[in-house]
Amino acid sequence: MAPASRFGDRIAILAHGGYPDNGKTMEGVMRYGDYEIAAVLAHDHAGSRTRESFPDLPDAPIRATMDDVAEPVDALLIGVAPVGGGIDDRWRADIVRALERGCDVVSGLHDQLSEDPEFAALAAEYDATIHELREPPSELPVASGIAEEVDATVVLTVGTDCAVGKMTTTMELAAAARERGISTGVVATGQTGIAITGRGIAIDRVQADFAAGAAEQLVVEIGADHDLLVVEGQASIVHPAFAADSIALLHGARPDYLVLCHDATRESYHNFEPVPLPAADRYVEWYTSIADPISPTEVLGGALDTSDIDEEAAARTAVAEYADRIGAPATDVIRYGPEPLLDALE
Amino acid sequence: MAPASRFGDRIAILAHGGYPDNGKTMEGVMRYGDYEIAAVLAHDHAGSRTRESFPDLPDAPIRATMDDVAEPVDALLIGVAPVGGGIDDRWRADIVRALERGCDVVSGLHDQLSEDPEFAALAAEYDATIHELREPPSELPVASGIAEEVDATVVLTVGTDCAVGKMTTTMELAAAARERGISTGVVATGQTGIAITGRGIAIDRVQADFAAGAAEQLVVEIGADHDLLVVEGQASIVHPAFAADSIALLHGARPDYLVLCHDATRESYHNFEPVPLPAADRYVEWYTSIADPISPTEVLGGALDTSDIDEEAAARTAVAEYADRIGAPATDVIRYGPEPLLDALE
Repeated sequence: MAPASRFGDRIAILAHGGYPDNGKTMEGVMRYGDYEIAAVLAHDHAGSRTRESFPDLPDAPIRATMDDVAEPVDALLIGVAPVGGGIDDRWRADIVRALERGCDVVSGLHDQLSEDPEFAALAAEYDATIHELREPPSELPVASGIAEEVDATVVLTVGTDCAVGKMTTTMELAAAARERGISTGVVATGQTGIAITGRGIAIDRVQADFAAGAAEQLVVEIGADHDLLVVEGQASIVHPAFAADSIALLHGARPDYLVLCHDATRESYHNFEPVPLPAADRYVEWYTSIADPISPTEVLGGALDTSDIDEEAAARTAVAEYADRIGAPATDVIRYGPEPLLDALE
Repeated sequence: MAPASRFGDRIAILAHGGYPDNGKTMEGVMRYGDYEIAAVLAHDHAGSRTRESFPDLPDAPIRATMDDVAEPVDALLIGVAPVGGGIDDRWRADIVRALERGCDVVSGLHDQLSEDPEFAALAAEYDATIHELREPPSELPVASGIAEEVDATVVLTVGTDCAVGKMTTTMELAAAARERGISTGVVATGQTGIAITGRGIAIDRVQADFAAGAAEQLVVEIGADHDLLVVEGQASIVHPAFAADSIALLHGARPDYLVLCHDATRESYHNFEPVPLPAADRYVEWYTSIADPISPTEVLGGALDTSDIDEEAAARTAVAEYADRIGAPATDVIRYGPEPLLDALE
């Protein structure tokens, strides 16, 4: 039932310098990915195990270098993203050693590993592939509307802002649907989602004219194999900088339903603090009315991140108030699980 | 008062195979550009003059090849855009000859002339520049909201669809404002607009995350020198494929006013015929409400293309009905001039 993983079955994750706090991709892949984790590479933590920092994730040994990973490994995933997105020189030896073992390398870095002459030569010599998660395909179509014809029920996670839980909601909803025996596909549109599912397109890196077409292509391809498709949204339709990502997914994916993600304590746009965040019910109107002439959709429910609310009663109240405000069932997919969203679907 | 033309003062326009009917860029540059047209190159029409086909445009001689253009020329503009956007082999000799004269070459083709080894070598040898109109700058910012601080009044032309007159309205409005003595800048966001003004960024080719930032950068740079800024819109905020272009301009440019462009006889989306076009008043609501939390704006007026309505009374009625529908003054900027829009501004 899990999606095909094009990066193989067993992977190692490079996390030098970012373990345990700055490994968003590592954590996402360990939590939601369908991979066996042979090892996490982190110089400073060699000899310990990941359960010491991440008790709720599948456990894996921590090693100092690729040489310390005796087991066969299909791919080495760069699991940390330093500021600037460049290649850290301390990683070079492990990337070289992985390629020399014929092991693929998977990177979401801004700098392309495949443009590094040494890495490129080794990949060619040892028949290994360097997967660039951030790099969209060079040939993408203009959207033509064919996502409308997909038989699968398409759910798009949308948000009031960036960093409000769209990726997490996507993965939690898909996992819960699979547990109910529903054939479910995930359309990943950002680098962590792509690392988790093994396929997808980083929509924010696609030229504006082709962004809806990229979404459409993914929905058509992945939708053909499933009854339910959960599409990872990006940014927000009303946003100082990134609304283009959001509207391209809305029109390109042609979702039957939306899940509106929001952070319970967010008052202004993430990284744009002077701009106050509009009320959530306005987003319901915006998303549904902007979708309407192209492909009508409705809000299935809301996903509220209450992780900054300690008190249980206050969190429950926040979810109930959010449900009232958006006029649909709501939950915190981590605190209370995604079942209310799934119930609304069936 | 005219904008700086970075392609020089005197240009020749290559129109082989596209003259007179398939030269949208040529026609736009002749109509609105601040260039002296030394010659139009069109094998099949050599010896005649452009006034024979375009009586309302500045007149220019038509020549067979670059060798027949005796006058000094600053730049050769590729004025035709064949389907596919490739380089036509019949143009090669003229491009070579232009570069050998040290003359810049300006191209909006999809294929980049500067990646052609022969052209690149000649440009280097003769110190000529190949300007690729479609290629955005390699370094663009994420939008940060600084367009808000521009003192100039910013007007954005928006549309109900593609090909409803946004570029034409932009140029007509700017020309009329200049005639009234208003210092007016144009922000070009598509290849013809860029060819006309000599600067700009093709928004549809910018990666989605940077499209609003590109708009913002242009508004800040060009706005600093003017009291009025007319920003060329792209596509439509509700569109099967290209809404990302439109919303990036809306949020990035932070316009004070919008001009809503529409084609009087358009019933379904251009090139997406099965999708019926929504009523124009819905667009007023969409554009203003999606802009509101980021930077409030209002519809200054409407620009209706009535060129497919022959009867004068019917055209007048269509404009009046359009004004009623959108709740703002309207005109056909070609048939009746842009003055009603300018009057609404002052």
